[in-house]
Amino acid sequence: MSSETPKNDNKLVIGAHEFDSRLVIGTAGYANFQVMLDCVRASRAEMVTVSIRRIDLAASQESGVLDLLADECTILPNTAGCFTARDAVFTAQLAREALQTNLIKLEVIGDDETLLPDGEELLKAARQLVSEGFDVMAYSNDDPILCSKLQDAGCAAVMPLGSPIGSGMGIQNPYNLRIIRDLLEVPMFIDAGIGTASDAAFAMELGCDGVLLNTAISGAKKPVVMADAFRKAVEAGRSAYVAGRIPRRHYAQASSPTAGMVQWKDS
Amino acid sequence: MSSETPKNDNKLVIGAHEFDSRLVIGTAGYANFQVMLDCVRASRAEMVTVSIRRIDLAASQESGVLDLLADECTILPNTAGCFTARDAVFTAQLAREALQTNLIKLEVIGDDETLLPDGEELLKAARQLVSEGFDVMAYSNDDPILCSKLQDAGCAAVMPLGSPIGSGMGIQNPYNLRIIRDLLEVPMFIDAGIGTASDAAFAMELGCDGVLLNTAISGAKKPVVMADAFRKAVEAGRSAYVAGRIPRRHYAQASSPTAGMVQWKDS
Amino acid sequence: MSSETPKNDNKLVIGAHEFDSRLVIGTAGYANFQVMLDCVRASRAEMVTVSIRRIDLAASQESGVLDLLADECTILPNTAGCFTARDAVFTAQLAREALQTNLIKLEVIGDDETLLPDGEELLKAARQLVSEGFDVMAYSNDDPILCSKLQDAGCAAVMPLGSPIGSGMGIQNPYNLRIIRDLLEVPMFIDAGIGTASDAAFAMELGCDGVLLNTAISGAKKPVVMADAFRKAVEAGRSAYVAGRIPRRHYAQASSPTAGMVQWKDS
Amino acid sequence: MSSETPKNDNKLVIGAHEFDSRLVIGTAGYANFQVMLDCVRASRAEMVTVSIRRIDLAASQESGVLDLLADECTILPNTAGCFTARDAVFTAQLAREALQTNLIKLEVIGDDETLLPDGEELLKAARQLVSEGFDVMAYSNDDPILCSKLQDAGCAAVMPLGSPIGSGMGIQNPYNLRIIRDLLEVPMFIDAGIGTASDAAFAMELGCDGVLLNTAISGAKKPVVMADAFRKAVEAGRSAYVAGRIPRRHYAQASSPTAGMVQWKDS
Repeated sequence: MSSETPKNDNKLVIGAHEFDSRLVIGTAGYANFQVMLDCVRASRAEMVTVSIRRIDLAASQESGVLDLLADECTILPNTAGCFTARDAVFTAQLAREALQTNLIKLEVIGDDETLLPDGEELLKAARQLVSEGFDVMAYSNDDPILCSKLQDAGCAAVMPLGSPIGSGMGIQNPYNLRIIRDLLEVPMFIDAGIGTASDAAFAMELGCDGVLLNTAISGAKKPVVMADAFRKAVEAGRSAYVAGRIPRRHYAQASSPTAGMVQWKDS
Repeated sequence: MSSETPKNDNKLVIGAHEFDSRLVIGTAGYANFQVMLDCVRASRAEMVTVSIRRIDLAASQESGVLDLLADECTILPNTAGCFTARDAVFTAQLAREALQTNLIKLEVIGDDETLLPDGEELLKAARQLVSEGFDVMAYSNDDPILCSKLQDAGCAAVMPLGSPIGSGMGIQNPYNLRIIRDLLEVPMFIDAGIGTASDAAFAMELGCDGVLLNTAISGAKKPVVMADAFRKAVEAGRSAYVAGRIPRRHYAQASSPTAGMVQWKDS
Repeated sequence: MSSETPKNDNKLVIGAHEFDSRLVIGTAGYANFQVMLDCVRASRAEMVTVSIRRIDLAASQESGVLDLLADECTILPNTAGCFTARDAVFTAQLAREALQTNLIKLEVIGDDETLLPDGEELLKAARQLVSEGFDVMAYSNDDPILCSKLQDAGCAAVMPLGSPIGSGMGIQNPYNLRIIRDLLEVPMFIDAGIGTASDAAFAMELGCDGVLLNTAISGAKKPVVMADAFRKAVEAGRSAYVAGRIPRRHYAQASSPTAGMVQWKDS
Repeated sequence: MSSETPKNDNKLVIGAHEFDSRLVIGTAGYANFQVMLDCVRASRAEMVTVSIRRIDLAASQESGVLDLLADECTILPNTAGCFTARDAVFTAQLAREALQTNLIKLEVIGDDETLLPDGEELLKAARQLVSEGFDVMAYSNDDPILCSKLQDAGCAAVMPLGSPIGSGMGIQNPYNLRIIRDLLEVPMFIDAGIGTASDAAFAMELGCDGVLLNTAISGAKKPVVMADAFRKAVEAGRSAYVAGRIPRRHYAQASSPTAGMVQWKDS
């Protein structure tokens, strides 16, 4: 099997970091810290994203939570809850100072009901942060032109949504994601909207480099079982993408009838 | 995590047989016997289905292929290529005699272009074979009433298609499959039409007990990598089903913004 | 425009009857007889289907309702509520005697929760009724082999469902309907599951010869407006089918930019 | 029926203009001017959009084509082919001067392969043109935040795409369009991607105020028949939206069996 696998196929590269896992999970919404930690471990995620709220940063560091997580994973701070480029840039700067990392998951939200990205502010923030040396992973709409401009702006990864954050609606527009896949050379994640394992497998089969999710695990009835499901689903989707699926045909193609055991005798 | 898992959740029971794996794969269409065997192993399937063609049965047994497979897996003979109940019943009887098994995957095809099942002949054959003591796994259309009648006829498992054999079109009618899931108490497989890993995960998330496929592995560019993908996809889908996915919501549900790291301090 | 239209394109032929309209509507579930009549008129349906219940036949005829309808439309009696071939055949015979028509919409239901057709009993009844000289319009599952057998049995029309009766779920499996369209030479209707106008247009664009519906009109908030919507939708779908739609392309095809007003100068 | 229809329901208001038709069609890509004119008439569109290319404007006016069209319809000039806000604004100014209209269909394209809108440049151009007194109808991505900002910028109508221009892929993301419908108070059109009649009916059922298309008619095998199909489809979709469709149900709802002709006797 090793001869079939491209060299280093399993390595995902973001800025200076290399990862074997292609699943990134969020840390919010768990019943308690232990469940969160069990899920991180069951998912085998090597990068976890945490929300940087100015008021909490000092406190949460004191609590040792970030230190504990940082022993096991790369921490990806995010700017969740920011509605303007200015606010997001400031939050990213705070995160860099506090966590000593250039990585930032950039979210600039346009609406607190849908939590959908504001492309105009997002572009502004991305350009500013790249110029300040950040490795920007940009949470984006599934707009191919916007994603292309985020790449041009120098983002380390572009992360279009499948559907709104926490909606569990899966991938609403595979057509756009395929166009984005064609346009991008930087790593592309699906970020937001994933509801269940098959959504994540499907994202990877579209050629995505990774999947980022949170609620789909933290909100499942059995979060740790779901974390394990997502680990396998992302691996399954990646393997299927690498393996090269059969084409879709309008009509049936006999497997058994015309190709029975006879051929084995020839082998 | 063990406390979260139902007792014996991993065991699939068909007639007198118990299986840890919920993936059944076909043995046709591989480049050679070694690739087929590598795929069976990579898939970790514990049951493989082989086509019983009268003319080949003696020859293939001589070749030792079936013996070799039988050492590693449960053999599930199938009646692929039969167009009438009479032909299918006869083929099943031959299989039982040759392979010393009551298991039979019953296929009665209505058309050699679409290879779609002929429900009327299928029901006739199923009733006959059950009366003769077979453990019938019936390949069926996704017709809820037909599936229900196959259950009433005493089939050990009912196996509606996702789409036509070898089409790779995936699951065309999840709505019907949900109705069938509600109606059936016997094990339910998706058999036919699976194209890639996410299709299999999705089938399991619908509550299916297993997935049967052939071309999706044998026809992939890298069959062994694809076999591994399907193993993980079926496990992922099963785990996600057991874990209980989040509901779909029309609007976004904040994960990060309103549920930051603060709450961990409270836990 | 007339030169573009195939000869007699608008005529639908069922047995000895010819119709300009390709919409057939049911007569159940209306607030009162006047609303029903207004809907029939707004829909411009030329054939309406009525349920033959033994106990009501005499009474309803006395009421003059059928006579009134029969002045405006062809009456298509149906065997709704029959669960066996025997019951359906008997109901059809009653209908013929009472209404003096060979037309029968054959329903044989397998389950009173889903109201889905029982293919096995349906085939039995169809063969019997054809042998007795009925023009059978068979309400069927979207099973291509079953539909093909209904044609072979001599049915005047085959009418696969879009989704269960009254569900309003629209067309769940266009893939199967396309296969059925390829297989059938007799007229093909979509019967059941239509929820709104676009469902009916889509059915016609698939190449169906007609659409049969009831609840989508009778259950709408404004039934008469909805009847008018369905009239236009069926005509629109038929015209679009005849007109020959543009192909689907993965990427954009400029309409304006590369093909501006210049070309008009050439005309 | 008139009592069921909201007052003035049929009137669509854009700036100072009122329309009975909710279909706007483009004028590019026809075999010749006469076919184009026949299609405009068959579609009963009251507004047609024409591409303003600087080099052609003088010539095409000379040809009298615009005058002829303007006798029958409102002319909606568009900025197709513009890649920057600056270029689009300039083109709009030329159009106003030449055609003496404040109406402008604003297109700012980000990519000449996909022809998808560039949201950033689009917003810039929209703000500028509104400040100069234009009635801007903005062709947009299906990004709810972008559409909301276009409304806030003062656009007279916001026109998200169904899929890329000329692709015929229909409506790829009804979920986003529903969110946009909820967010917008100004008229909302679907512009681009419509392939066939049912797409247009579906767009209207989502609550859109109108549909704009070009290639779906000009590229059909029989353009005039297709124009007639779209006229009916838009009317059908609008009527269905106004009529209030039945809800979708997972299981069947009997129309005939439990609600036969008996009830008419009670009415």
